[in-house]
Amino acid sequence: MRVAILGVGLIGGSVGLAARQRLGAFVTGHDPDPEAMRVGLDVGALDAAGTLAEAVADADVAVVGAPVGRIPEVVEAVLRHAGPDTIVTDVGSAKGAIVAAVDDRRFVGGHPLAGAETAGVRHAREDLFAGAPWYLTPRSGSSGVVFERLTRFLAGLGARPQAIEAATHDRLMASISHVPHVIANVLVAQAAVVLADDGTLPATGPSFRDATRVAGANTTMWTDIYLANRDALVDRLDDVVHRLQTVRADLVAGDAAAIAGWNDAARADREALLAVGLAGGTAPSCELRVAVPNRPGVVADVALALGHAGINIHDMTLSPSDDERTGEVALWVDADGASRAAELVAGLGLRVEGAP
Amino acid sequence: MRVAILGVGLIGGSVGLAARQRLGAFVTGHDPDPEAMRVGLDVGALDAAGTLAEAVADADVAVVGAPVGRIPEVVEAVLRHAGPDTIVTDVGSAKGAIVAAVDDRRFVGGHPLAGAETAGVRHAREDLFAGAPWYLTPRSGSSGVVFERLTRFLAGLGARPQAIEAATHDRLMASISHVPHVIANVLVAQAAVVLADDGTLPATGPSFRDATRVAGANTTMWTDIYLANRDALVDRLDDVVHRLQTVRADLVAGDAAAIAGWNDAARADREALLAVGLAGGTAPSCELRVAVPNRPGVVADVALALGHAGINIHDMTLSPSDDERTGEVALWVDADGASRAAELVAGLGLRVEGAP
Repeated sequence: MRVAILGVGLIGGSVGLAARQRLGAFVTGHDPDPEAMRVGLDVGALDAAGTLAEAVADADVAVVGAPVGRIPEVVEAVLRHAGPDTIVTDVGSAKGAIVAAVDDRRFVGGHPLAGAETAGVRHAREDLFAGAPWYLTPRSGSSGVVFERLTRFLAGLGARPQAIEAATHDRLMASISHVPHVIANVLVAQAAVVLADDGTLPATGPSFRDATRVAGANTTMWTDIYLANRDALVDRLDDVVHRLQTVRADLVAGDAAAIAGWNDAARADREALLAVGLAGGTAPSCELRVAVPNRPGVVADVALALGHAGINIHDMTLSPSDDERTGEVALWVDADGASRAAELVAGLGLRVEGAP
Repeated sequence: MRVAILGVGLIGGSVGLAARQRLGAFVTGHDPDPEAMRVGLDVGALDAAGTLAEAVADADVAVVGAPVGRIPEVVEAVLRHAGPDTIVTDVGSAKGAIVAAVDDRRFVGGHPLAGAETAGVRHAREDLFAGAPWYLTPRSGSSGVVFERLTRFLAGLGARPQAIEAATHDRLMASISHVPHVIANVLVAQAAVVLADDGTLPATGPSFRDATRVAGANTTMWTDIYLANRDALVDRLDDVVHRLQTVRADLVAGDAAAIAGWNDAARADREALLAVGLAGGTAPSCELRVAVPNRPGVVADVALALGHAGINIHDMTLSPSDDERTGEVALWVDADGASRAAELVAGLGLRVEGAP
């Protein structure tokens, strides 16, 4: 197996290390910065480095790890140099613009939830993706074969691939990552004014330290991320402002019952979020076999239906039948989501075997 | 030494444990909940429990640990039953209303920055205040003797007392504690809507987990805290909204330079806040002796001037002269703030000896 890494940073380098060590792949790399390629070879993330065209030649999988603002152009360049069977993906943290810009059956957008804070291939680790969610954003027209091979490749790196619509992904990332980063910046800026005005030591408590740990994260990377996801981010910031103004009104009115109810609701929300997060990490997996017509998009439709319901696909195989007109998809899903998965797949008009 | 604890919860119980174990004090307690008194005796936080009047009788120091909304009435009750030399303080997290309501030379408001999250005397620890900042809010007319004895008592519990104006305290607490709690609630509420709408697993990253750890904290306690500090909290929430709207405008304009500059400023702010926090925790202390006229308020003025400049007072003694018309205050302050402290004290028209 040959893997190409375009953009040799923390994520690209970790893909290279994991692909070499876990899958025995031959990994080629390209980066506009020659030093990144040198370090990539040094730390064992790459077998070879060269131009983009050299790195992509004969690759089975090409992973674009460029800064998110540059991803569409790099993906286009990779697709121009890649062969007809090369699978191309990216690791950008905002997906709407990329998925809209690239229309090619060889491409499926992706985003691993791992290691955004310490940049650089020098920090690359072969276990960076172990157990980590890796979102994939197939379109309805995406090739099932491409999606299946990519899913297996990512599972082979140790990640847990999950399909999701690009727009939902971007809204989710805005809520759980980009908005908390914006707010961390706002909180330190506000506290710094108290420090500057009064010279008073702000002996900060744990809530402040926790909420501001990511303040002022890598400027180049985060300016890029904020702007790449700006539509969803602006929408979620407006939602935050609206919620703050509701609390403000309750405070001004001295409405203790409203404040108490709002705080109780937050506790319930937090518990629900924790419960989902925990369930996702520990469930054993179950096999579902699905007979599918051999047409584009059917596998992506299945993956999106399960992803939409919060059901993880741990692994997946796609076996065409002899006549090439039908096939079978085997899916390994969370055991506690298997019944629901079978219903969802049946709801798409597909026949399910091995349902629990 | 006799110490009275009015309100036997986590903070009151920890004061009792520390006073007994570190200062050899005899600790009496009162709580409207008999079970809290029973547990307080069980865990060794109290030597005796009884009515408020019984607990306060003959106390050298009375510490009011009632919920912050009830503190003014409990302090008034304690002052009615306390002797002329009893020092009365409280541990409320908002100080403006309390300090405005209570005008008695025996009272100085206080607030330890320790252990707000796990409530109840069962969680009390004798080392809860070890190294923790303990804000004191003397008024210009506060008794120097009372302030000095209270400072020494708190330092004896292991805390680091620091004088601060009540209004500054409340603004600071809003910024570094109450606003982060409000935002944690807002973030989980927003993310829970994504969960409910889409059923998508929000595989949350570390920034979200950190920012929402305190979401839905104890409702009774936090409703009380939010409302007790509502003026400062509303002001700081308005500032947060204003800052979010500025970022929003830069995002909509696609202004990468503005976003990058804002993020760089946040990094600098965070580093400045960390530097101050770290410096406060590790500096050795230096002695300053100050000749003071024997008039009310002079010690509070000195403490406020140093607190205003972010200089910690580790310990303090007040020695009246033989003629009772002048006296000497010995202050132990952070070594790296000692020169500045000497200047500030001299600026108040007081003579400093032992300046570095």
